[in-house]
Amino acid sequence: MSGIKTSGEKRLVLVSGRAHPQLALDIATELGTELVHTDARTFANGEIYARFDESVRGSDTFVIQSHTNPINEWLMEQLIMVDALKRASAKRITVVAPFYPYARQDKKGRGREPISARLVADLFKVAGADRIMAVDLHAAQIQGFFDGPVDHLFAMPVLLEHFKEKLDPATLTVVSPDMGRVRVADIWSDKLGAPLAIIHKRRDPLVPNRVSVHEIVGQVEGRVCLIVDDMIDTGRTIVLAAEALRKAGAIGVVVAATHAVFSHPALELLQNPAISEVVVTDTLPIPMEKRFPTLTVLPIAPLLARAIHEVFDEGSVTSMFEGAA
Amino acid sequence: MSGIKTSGEKRLVLVSGRAHPQLALDIATELGTELVHTDARTFANGEIYARFDESVRGSDTFVIQSHTNPINEWLMEQLIMVDALKRASAKRITVVAPFYPYARQDKKGRGREPISARLVADLFKVAGADRIMAVDLHAAQIQGFFDGPVDHLFAMPVLLEHFKEKLDPATLTVVSPDMGRVRVADIWSDKLGAPLAIIHKRRDPLVPNRVSVHEIVGQVEGRVCLIVDDMIDTGRTIVLAAEALRKAGAIGVVVAATHAVFSHPALELLQNPAISEVVVTDTLPIPMEKRFPTLTVLPIAPLLARAIHEVFDEGSVTSMFEGAA
Amino acid sequence: MSGIKTSGEKRLVLVSGRAHPQLALDIATELGTELVHTDARTFANGEIYARFDESVRGSDTFVIQSHTNPINEWLMEQLIMVDALKRASAKRITVVAPFYPYARQDKKGRGREPISARLVADLFKVAGADRIMAVDLHAAQIQGFFDGPVDHLFAMPVLLEHFKEKLDPATLTVVSPDMGRVRVADIWSDKLGAPLAIIHKRRDPLVPNRVSVHEIVGQVEGRVCLIVDDMIDTGRTIVLAAEALRKAGAIGVVVAATHAVFSHPALELLQNPAISEVVVTDTLPIPMEKRFPTLTVLPIAPLLARAIHEVFDEGSVTSMFEGAA
Amino acid sequence: MSGIKTSGEKRLVLVSGRAHPQLALDIATELGTELVHTDARTFANGEIYARFDESVRGSDTFVIQSHTNPINEWLMEQLIMVDALKRASAKRITVVAPFYPYARQDKKGRGREPISARLVADLFKVAGADRIMAVDLHAAQIQGFFDGPVDHLFAMPVLLEHFKEKLDPATLTVVSPDMGRVRVADIWSDKLGAPLAIIHKRRDPLVPNRVSVHEIVGQVEGRVCLIVDDMIDTGRTIVLAAEALRKAGAIGVVVAATHAVFSHPALELLQNPAISEVVVTDTLPIPMEKRFPTLTVLPIAPLLARAIHEVFDEGSVTSMFEGAA
Amino acid sequence: MSGIKTSGEKRLVLVSGRAHPQLALDIATELGTELVHTDARTFANGEIYARFDESVRGSDTFVIQSHTNPINEWLMEQLIMVDALKRASAKRITVVAPFYPYARQDKKGRGREPISARLVADLFKVAGADRIMAVDLHAAQIQGFFDGPVDHLFAMPVLLEHFKEKLDPATLTVVSPDMGRVRVADIWSDKLGAPLAIIHKRRDPLVPNRVSVHEIVGQVEGRVCLIVDDMIDTGRTIVLAAEALRKAGAIGVVVAATHAVFSHPALELLQNPAISEVVVTDTLPIPMEKRFPTLTVLPIAPLLARAIHEVFDEGSVTSMFEGAA
Amino acid sequence: MSGIKTSGEKRLVLVSGRAHPQLALDIATELGTELVHTDARTFANGEIYARFDESVRGSDTFVIQSHTNPINEWLMEQLIMVDALKRASAKRITVVAPFYPYARQDKKGRGREPISARLVADLFKVAGADRIMAVDLHAAQIQGFFDGPVDHLFAMPVLLEHFKEKLDPATLTVVSPDMGRVRVADIWSDKLGAPLAIIHKRRDPLVPNRVSVHEIVGQVEGRVCLIVDDMIDTGRTIVLAAEALRKAGAIGVVVAATHAVFSHPALELLQNPAISEVVVTDTLPIPMEKRFPTLTVLPIAPLLARAIHEVFDEGSVTSMFEGAA
Repeated sequence: MSGIKTSGEKRLVLVSGRAHPQLALDIATELGTELVHTDARTFANGEIYARFDESVRGSDTFVIQSHTNPINEWLMEQLIMVDALKRASAKRITVVAPFYPYARQDKKGRGREPISARLVADLFKVAGADRIMAVDLHAAQIQGFFDGPVDHLFAMPVLLEHFKEKLDPATLTVVSPDMGRVRVADIWSDKLGAPLAIIHKRRDPLVPNRVSVHEIVGQVEGRVCLIVDDMIDTGRTIVLAAEALRKAGAIGVVVAATHAVFSHPALELLQNPAISEVVVTDTLPIPMEKRFPTLTVLPIAPLLARAIHEVFDEGSVTSMFEGAA
Repeated sequence: MSGIKTSGEKRLVLVSGRAHPQLALDIATELGTELVHTDARTFANGEIYARFDESVRGSDTFVIQSHTNPINEWLMEQLIMVDALKRASAKRITVVAPFYPYARQDKKGRGREPISARLVADLFKVAGADRIMAVDLHAAQIQGFFDGPVDHLFAMPVLLEHFKEKLDPATLTVVSPDMGRVRVADIWSDKLGAPLAIIHKRRDPLVPNRVSVHEIVGQVEGRVCLIVDDMIDTGRTIVLAAEALRKAGAIGVVVAATHAVFSHPALELLQNPAISEVVVTDTLPIPMEKRFPTLTVLPIAPLLARAIHEVFDEGSVTSMFEGAA
Repeated sequence: MSGIKTSGEKRLVLVSGRAHPQLALDIATELGTELVHTDARTFANGEIYARFDESVRGSDTFVIQSHTNPINEWLMEQLIMVDALKRASAKRITVVAPFYPYARQDKKGRGREPISARLVADLFKVAGADRIMAVDLHAAQIQGFFDGPVDHLFAMPVLLEHFKEKLDPATLTVVSPDMGRVRVADIWSDKLGAPLAIIHKRRDPLVPNRVSVHEIVGQVEGRVCLIVDDMIDTGRTIVLAAEALRKAGAIGVVVAATHAVFSHPALELLQNPAISEVVVTDTLPIPMEKRFPTLTVLPIAPLLARAIHEVFDEGSVTSMFEGAA
Repeated sequence: MSGIKTSGEKRLVLVSGRAHPQLALDIATELGTELVHTDARTFANGEIYARFDESVRGSDTFVIQSHTNPINEWLMEQLIMVDALKRASAKRITVVAPFYPYARQDKKGRGREPISARLVADLFKVAGADRIMAVDLHAAQIQGFFDGPVDHLFAMPVLLEHFKEKLDPATLTVVSPDMGRVRVADIWSDKLGAPLAIIHKRRDPLVPNRVSVHEIVGQVEGRVCLIVDDMIDTGRTIVLAAEALRKAGAIGVVVAATHAVFSHPALELLQNPAISEVVVTDTLPIPMEKRFPTLTVLPIAPLLARAIHEVFDEGSVTSMFEGAA
Repeated sequence: MSGIKTSGEKRLVLVSGRAHPQLALDIATELGTELVHTDARTFANGEIYARFDESVRGSDTFVIQSHTNPINEWLMEQLIMVDALKRASAKRITVVAPFYPYARQDKKGRGREPISARLVADLFKVAGADRIMAVDLHAAQIQGFFDGPVDHLFAMPVLLEHFKEKLDPATLTVVSPDMGRVRVADIWSDKLGAPLAIIHKRRDPLVPNRVSVHEIVGQVEGRVCLIVDDMIDTGRTIVLAAEALRKAGAIGVVVAATHAVFSHPALELLQNPAISEVVVTDTLPIPMEKRFPTLTVLPIAPLLARAIHEVFDEGSVTSMFEGAA
Repeated sequence: MSGIKTSGEKRLVLVSGRAHPQLALDIATELGTELVHTDARTFANGEIYARFDESVRGSDTFVIQSHTNPINEWLMEQLIMVDALKRASAKRITVVAPFYPYARQDKKGRGREPISARLVADLFKVAGADRIMAVDLHAAQIQGFFDGPVDHLFAMPVLLEHFKEKLDPATLTVVSPDMGRVRVADIWSDKLGAPLAIIHKRRDPLVPNRVSVHEIVGQVEGRVCLIVDDMIDTGRTIVLAAEALRKAGAIGVVVAATHAVFSHPALELLQNPAISEVVVTDTLPIPMEKRFPTLTVLPIAPLLARAIHEVFDEGSVTSMFEGAA
């Protein structure tokens, strides 16, 4: 048969946007490799430019970006990087978005709304992404927004490891801070063998104009309450929940969440004395000035590095969570 | 300017698959029009054939199908009809799927699962559908699975109308039969001004092998319980919930659901004495032999007809639910 | 150059739907491997579920399904399996459909008809199939319906092998049972060195209402007739042809066809004394109760296994038929 | 409601490539309109340029081109015109290709062949065509190659009209010149109430190296034979058939075909004394020097004009052929 | 014929992002209509939300956004608005981007660069845009980046009108500030009947490290120089050109540009005494604090309004520039 | 893990159209391999057919074609070859188009024009091309017309090598023959360290009807002028430039261009005594009868061969031009 032959070889390439360089470095270190340097810049008029310093031709590339505020800048930077990779003949491009942007706009709550989470999936696709990797999607259905494989990782094993030695199931209650997080709390309750309580926000029928009260459903008196959520944004929901739990007799309130969005005024609110500890991961960068005494930040890089390695090596990402579950 | 000119005219065309002819007839009657007859047949080897008896060129066509068992037959029939419409130069094709098929497979719960709800959206798209109209999607995120407009209708106003005269908020509790339906129950609770309770299925820590107990969270003793759900399939969840509520002192249990899937053994289970009444709509056909004494079936055709008219007339579907909400 | 490197390795994975498990097993055996187990189920309301028990990441996967009645169920099952494979990061997905579904609806015979064979190709594509493998397409043009490679295999070498020892070209006539199959009969006539005859269905000009007569064009008196067709569905065309041939003096009638659809009442009709033998392959399952004394079933698995191996190994499928042709 | 409103108006626009200007003029005349002038040119290096002299914004445009030799020039010209129309905001673009180019390469006869007829459909689509209109496709399956509506017109009513007064069914035999045209001959036979004969090209088993003989299947002695085909290219098949028919005792041979490709040496061959008359339509241009005494050319413009009008007016193209069939 | 009929009616809808509300208001005023109000917001974590207060179903919608700094925010806002319009069943969506974002990254200058201008076209397309309208694209080839119609408007008639009374061709020289703008200067030179000069940036061969000198090609001594450009970003190129012209004996330097990007330190630089006047349009917002004494801002709204009206009315945008050119 | 495994192997396959067989042979020789033979033919009616004599399954194929006159024939041949490769399961298909066809129609200069260069990119894409390789695109923006990687090669190193020994920078001026080529001339000027001059075509204000004069901007008197362009088509622009330069006192005129289109009457024009030498590459075939005494043809095969090897080997094409630049 005619033609030149060579044996195929696969090359894993890691590149990173500028949103959270430490996370990318940590992942590279975990994998025992280095990031391919990206010359990424913002021009005077706000346009972003990116170029890779090394050939990525034929590589299996992972583009790491952390969608913190200013979220649209970082999203656009990642899209531009994906475009450049596609045109530079990368063989496979995986968008690594530990905190999936616009995840909360995942449906039309009212007429004439966008479904921005689907839009984001389409933007990644049209730019050239073959795959997406994300941690704790706000709604698992977002996997279905992308026309291709989505590696959906769970931070729970990481968080659980932290709590297992600290909390006693006998005196613990797992709490969902609102109706939307009940499913997550349910899983924690099951894993920890602890009962469940739910905070139910309800219009007060006696007071007009949609004033709402926070009802607690379930037993919390004399118990340590573990509030679980996928993300903490401004912290308002969490703090109102914590205060309601304390008022109902909880002897301790601990908070666990994957994504530390920490928009203003989260820093003040989370230092509320009703909360003993807040445990999060570093899927989003948490600058020193946002790190308060009762905050614990667990590294997410080992989880991401292991998943990237499984994807590159055609192993199984699913199996990573089987031991844990 | 050269060329022949005519003033544009729009024509609404209704066609229907064979799954639920009565619903299509009811919609046509509500709209004051007739269905365009479809010659739909199943050949000896199971292949389906469909052809329209009249030209549909340039029309705004709505293809009504109800995805009851055998669900794959009716899905395929609808896809074939959409293909025929596309090739017959219909201008705009709206799939009317009151009960969206495969809605429950809307995410990968485990590795190597399909996301069949997304697949269905893609099948409709590739066949030629421009729009989808559905009632009470199992998860609102399914709207985001389709690359185009989805008219998401709510049966709640229809169901609520029925209950408003019958139930007294003072003695009523709205009940979610499991964790997944808490959001729906929350809305009913708000609309009816009645408190909420939740059935929580939990592994019994004392008994191995995942035997589960049904805990009730919230007050139900001495109250009439309204269990709300989007669909009733085999009825098992509903009946276990009803029995648990009765055991906890409920003085009455009423069930409201949009989609009456009624798979075996729903007919037997739902006639359980713990349940006083079951109220559903006819998004799916309910043959006479499945209509038991305590069942009330409310017609969904007026809602669908009104929505179809708004779509055809470039009106507002959103506004249909503003008065009700 | 930065990055982790490994040498690429290819893995062939076989999975099968539930329509014809024996065929899939036979193919696996021929290839000296095993099927990756698929957990495929039909829920109470008719929805199908499928999940693979093992990682398929990066694999070259072949999804075997046989489109027998209920054909829409098996088509939908295969689409769901393809969707699951795509989302599980299979590298390349080949749909193996020995009997291509809806092949006979390959054109618009009249206005407002679907072209279901094209629709099926699009459904496979949108679900995630990269390639299709099929045996004896009803019309070779169906290859052009799929936007990608189609491996079109021919069962003729398998069938020919059976007949070569049994039939004497000197007394044989190859017969096309209708106008649509003339091309196939022509090839057989050429291969066997035997003359050709054609059955011509014609409106009887003397009798109104489209009563048709079966004219025989060509010499059949005193000869053994071999009727060839791509499929036998209800068997009506074949039997009418056989009877007409006998009436015209044929001393024997033998039938060869690739696909044994055998819809009712094929079982009765094919046992007509005018037919000495019916020879088919097992592209479709033929249950024991449909196997009558004069039926011979030839295994198609060796052909499919060889083609799958050529595809996996980047060999040549074309060359498989060069020796034979 | 906000916004400016106007009543919609539709405008039909006809434009034409340079291959067969007379046909386009005839169509415009039939429709009682004029062609929008196109500035189409071929530059010195062979590149084609096209621009419309008038705005086509919002119009329902039909792009007429006749795919005669040099066929690739005219195909490319039509693609460029479609691109220009798309970018000039034409609302709907219908490619009018009376003779569909590359129709004979509609399948892979052997490995590593193109399916150029599908490629052509894809080229039209990607350039911006919404619809295709063609006359007597070589294989009806080509309709399924295009992802959108195809108006498939039949010239048979036009040809039939010519013959009905001239030929006597009592002495007529309809003849298919080879195996591939049997279906067409079958329809003519049915329409004219005349018997059928087939020319069967067969390897002579006595002579090596694929020398073939032309067998006649059916009665032709003492009869007038009407050879029917979709196109006449070099004329070789037709002439060999005519000679074989004469040798077998036919008292006259008449030929009817839709597309007069007339490649060299058709002009000489078709003037063979064995053939009394050749009747074709002008889907392709037939220059004066190719018009021989026994040739009759029937105009196809009335058929195309009527179909264009039905499409523009959202009428029914199907109904055009119902009276005729 | 069955079905409900209504006469079609078209509705023009204008919506606007938050980048440049005055421009949108001006366009609406020119058109004699109002903007449909958009509820657009930025959440605490930087995510943008947009919803329309009125039904846009079936409308011909124009989405106005001005891509000023922070450019990625406004681009993302517009994409989200387009997504919401698509899902709200707008019939046709035109993106109005007077200053096309990322226009300067229109090619790979070096390996591994993105082509962000193409990426932006793809983002608009995938979000749901059918058409794009822009003013003075940095490179006309950007029209070809979008798969659909692009209305490319020219501000030159607006700018020319301003200068025609002020400048005397007899003493005027048109100057291109660098090699890339020569084509634009060429057109101005032609329109004004004035000679051309070019500023040529060149490496000084005597000084290492790419120090460049500004050579003037053409006669400028004793003449008034009109520097023309499509945009002024930081103003550096313009000011260096103006100083070089003055040094070469120009008696006056006037600057004309369409897009006033005015990134820092444009405000300081442009008030350089070498420049007598700077004339721009308001395709981008120019806040009061950036308006210096020698700046003239011409309104672009009349041009955009007229083009929008032509598009809505299926008129001709081309003809708008024929009188002027 | 189940399944059959093999180690992957890559195979480079070269195939060529019929436009410029020598170039393809030269590339193969440079690479030390052979072309896979293609059976390419033109049928009597102008349709093209192509088939490969060897399996290309799984290969990394490069399809070489040179778009000389008749350009549409060769474009169509290449599209048909790409279609055949796609359907024959080639793994990756790179279109090698040294002279990109229709490159000059890269924008709408006026309304209702096509953007044929984008159309060509879309035609390649839809036929199945994954990548494009071209030399000296007329506008670099054409890279952005293709949705995928484009390897843009520069012939300048090849041409420069020829001139470096022949021309003395001290007496040399680089000349752009018109406004559109200024950028190219600018780069040459920089590389050679020679000053720049520009030919400016301008309407003569004194003579009506667009008679134009050729102004020379820059110093050419007493100098050797090197006119640089990407292509020479009819040669008119070049010759007028050369004559104007001579008239202005140039002591020599040399021409360098990548693509020798050489349409009539280039052969006569280029032998004008004003021009001392014309240097081109063989991206397009230059038959012996078009090779005049002052013409030098440099081989482009080494450049293309090296780039193909880099692409196949996942090396860096960018680095090929770093040394040169």
